[in-house]
Amino acid sequence: MPRFAIVPDHAVTIAVRVRYFETDKMQVAHHANYLVWFEEARSAFCRIRGIDYPQMERDGLFLPIVEAHCRYIAPARYDELLSVSVFVLECARRSVRFGYVIQRDETLLAEGETYQILVDGNGRPRSWPEELAARMTLGLPAT
Amino acid sequence: MPRFAIVPDHAVTIAVRVRYFETDKMQVAHHANYLVWFEEARSAFCRIRGIDYPQMERDGLFLPIVEAHCRYIAPARYDELLSVSVFVLECARRSVRFGYVIQRDETLLAEGETYQILVDGNGRPRSWPEELAARMTLGLPAT
Amino acid sequence: MPRFAIVPDHAVTIAVRVRYFETDKMQVAHHANYLVWFEEARSAFCRIRGIDYPQMERDGLFLPIVEAHCRYIAPARYDELLSVSVFVLECARRSVRFGYVIQRDETLLAEGETYQILVDGNGRPRSWPEELAARMTLGLPAT
Amino acid sequence: MPRFAIVPDHAVTIAVRVRYFETDKMQVAHHANYLVWFEEARSAFCRIRGIDYPQMERDGLFLPIVEAHCRYIAPARYDELLSVSVFVLECARRSVRFGYVIQRDETLLAEGETYQILVDGNGRPRSWPEELAARMTLGLPAT
Repeated sequence: MPRFAIVPDHAVTIAVRVRYFETDKMQVAHHANYLVWFEEARSAFCRIRGIDYPQMERDGLFLPIVEAHCRYIAPARYDELLSVSVFVLECARRSVRFGYVIQRDETLLAEGETYQILVDGNGRPRSWPEELAARMTLGLPAT
Repeated sequence: MPRFAIVPDHAVTIAVRVRYFETDKMQVAHHANYLVWFEEARSAFCRIRGIDYPQMERDGLFLPIVEAHCRYIAPARYDELLSVSVFVLECARRSVRFGYVIQRDETLLAEGETYQILVDGNGRPRSWPEELAARMTLGLPAT
Repeated sequence: MPRFAIVPDHAVTIAVRVRYFETDKMQVAHHANYLVWFEEARSAFCRIRGIDYPQMERDGLFLPIVEAHCRYIAPARYDELLSVSVFVLECARRSVRFGYVIQRDETLLAEGETYQILVDGNGRPRSWPEELAARMTLGLPAT
Repeated sequence: MPRFAIVPDHAVTIAVRVRYFETDKMQVAHHANYLVWFEEARSAFCRIRGIDYPQMERDGLFLPIVEAHCRYIAPARYDELLSVSVFVLECARRSVRFGYVIQRDETLLAEGETYQILVDGNGRPRSWPEELAARMTLGLPAT
């Protein structure tokens, strides 16, 4: 009984092809790769929203992961084409919470969440520059 | 202000050296590797408890991850020697929940949890064979 | 002084975006990932040539790597879009040799080669089925 | 017919346990991981020879891979304990060539080679500081 995930309109979705390297001896994509796919979706999210993350890092702003969670619902297999959607769940003054949905066609494969804080090069929390916050929260209901 | 994790007596602890490959451009171990280290600790847990996981798989019993969670508290860096502890939090009829603690000396770096179900080669849930359940729950308070 | 690689007409070229996970503390893509990108290009090569590699494996035909070589010419960095080209250098009765070129725009980043043999599920060498050999060698000068 | 590799006396050998994550759907360790194991052995080599590689990088000296080669002779499987040996083949003024042998018990699984150059933070070639060169070439016949 396939489930159908709800991906919000403001999500960014990328296509990911399961690599042979990403499979394991259980014949499916290894679960650690899902965090890598989440990250690849975040990279696309930033690019599409006009957030130059490589430049952010050169400017001394980083978004390390403080918490990551993934629920695995159905396996992904070699060479399958998946869609990985990412969307902001909540953007606070010095942090952001992303949600993720991975699907193959209409089948929900996984759901996830990461919580990240904005820090400088010494790991000290920093507040979102106004413009970046605006780009992050585009499409989110005002709070 | 370092935190000190409580690792139960029935935990199994392995040493993991952070590989260069596991670092990322933020100069720290990438967060996806923590799930790999958790898994390496589980492998040692099984070996030490006399659970031959490779044989289990040949016998058609698998323990796929249904849920994984990690909280990242302090970064790990290249060539550092970490201790990764794993312990059973709960072992139900057809599933098991593991807890994890990663430390460098006395400093807590990360905590995690995985929820796994026992399935056969077709993904159908299976009950723990009695002997395996006993080995899994060794040292746990009876429920 | 950038070099310009010669990619033959019968090559298959894919785009690969460097993942954050793939970078290391030297701020560049870690060299082991190049073998993974080569493999992703081979997967696309098979798909495009009508070679169903997942089906081949279900039929008991595998193409393990016997030899891999990579020459690293210029680094690749996070979020860069690379082109990875793969082409058959030589297809013998029970083996195949692939060549690879990785470029960013017109700059050559790496060149590589893999030598693979066709084996059955027990690792015994097998000859190429005629149709697969034809698909593999499409565009190659007859020998 | 197992082969027996010749590992020179001045080699450094580490033990590596094949991780589940490192297997692929062919039920064996994926070939890209061998480069990672080579690197882990190099890290141990440096540590044992009194070469503080993390400090070298803080001092602006890096050893990027210019060329990597691996020959795969027999597969490695999940949870197997391998020995990975590394030794200097040749140490020139601004470069070093390492050789590698991977074995399981007395069976040779793989042989490899990497060629690396010493560069500063801007990628410019540098000569080996005398003390580092001495530590690198310890046990090598004088040339």
